[in-house]
Amino acid sequence: MRYSYETDGAAIYAQSFAIIRAEADLGRFDPDEEGVAVRMIHAAGMVGLERHLRFSPGMAAAARRALQAGAPILCDAHMVSEGVTRSRLPAHNDVVCTLRDPAVPELAARLGTTRSAAALELWRPRLGGAVVAIGNAPTALFRLLEMLDDPGCPRPAAIVGCPVGFVGARESKEALWDAQPCPCLIVEGRLGGSAITVAAINALASRAE
Amino acid sequence: MRYSYETDGAAIYAQSFAIIRAEADLGRFDPDEEGVAVRMIHAAGMVGLERHLRFSPGMAAAARRALQAGAPILCDAHMVSEGVTRSRLPAHNDVVCTLRDPAVPELAARLGTTRSAAALELWRPRLGGAVVAIGNAPTALFRLLEMLDDPGCPRPAAIVGCPVGFVGARESKEALWDAQPCPCLIVEGRLGGSAITVAAINALASRAE
Repeated sequence: MRYSYETDGAAIYAQSFAIIRAEADLGRFDPDEEGVAVRMIHAAGMVGLERHLRFSPGMAAAARRALQAGAPILCDAHMVSEGVTRSRLPAHNDVVCTLRDPAVPELAARLGTTRSAAALELWRPRLGGAVVAIGNAPTALFRLLEMLDDPGCPRPAAIVGCPVGFVGARESKEALWDAQPCPCLIVEGRLGGSAITVAAINALASRAE
Repeated sequence: MRYSYETDGAAIYAQSFAIIRAEADLGRFDPDEEGVAVRMIHAAGMVGLERHLRFSPGMAAAARRALQAGAPILCDAHMVSEGVTRSRLPAHNDVVCTLRDPAVPELAARLGTTRSAAALELWRPRLGGAVVAIGNAPTALFRLLEMLDDPGCPRPAAIVGCPVGFVGARESKEALWDAQPCPCLIVEGRLGGSAITVAAINALASRAE
């Protein structure tokens, strides 16, 4: 064979996680958080990401409990819902993305916001106790905060809030951190995205490495 | 409204791309490449990514031509195929991911490799003239290089080679760059992933910003 490389998937994961644990500064994470941080670093290909992670107290434990109890995972983008590894889910949890629902374009026009944000209106019946995964749109995270400003709106069990980018991403994550409507995990600043968000969900769904 | 943020999708894109062009060092890219680099930086939320991008001469033009002529886009992961914006495709191009084909697990066992790599065997009938998008698995990129070592294997029109991670990612991208079986674009080192790869494809599919 002209190319020499590891072809065993389990060995690739084990070597990757060993490199991450050797290089990254994971000391401030508790055991529930550490495996989540490792998997997020893995998805980003970036040691140093750990410096930008913030877990609210008990977030990882709350999200794990909710998933084990069968909570649905509500995703802002299909790249997020598509990335969740179904075999890691502890209770055949539903993975939901409402972005392509036919009602969304008209909702977005009526609410004067993006389709990503408008799609969250369709989450309401399932929002109570859910695990929310926002990995793309800052407007979706802002919209969720507006919805949760209403005391009558059901509370999720936990929010992974990792929208990415240059306009609103940092601000929306800081707003989540300040509001703390429920346990949450953010990546500070511009970094974030679907891969990192999926990695957090996959780690919260199962401790298997 | 308690939160003040931009809710117009077009304005968000325009502001994001203006920030990127103000902050990133894009001088070494030609006009065909520049828009691709900007969109990749946008997806990563990371100015500085541009330092790690390498386009082979004429890659961006070759990929644009192929897509305009109707080339299929062959993706190594569903997060990649799911992220391609269908409305940007110039010729209703097919977006293909064979990872969940029922033949793949047995192929992987027979070939002694990962499912991500084995899935590429199913690309062969469509590989000639295709645009390849590898945004996840280093083993898939290595496998593609092995396939293309055979002079009888059809050549893609272009390869976006951006697997991510700590084991084999850097090595597989360097191997692609050294072999240059066709025009290619890589992100050097550990960085890469589905979001960055999708951004490159979306930029190559249309110049619209």
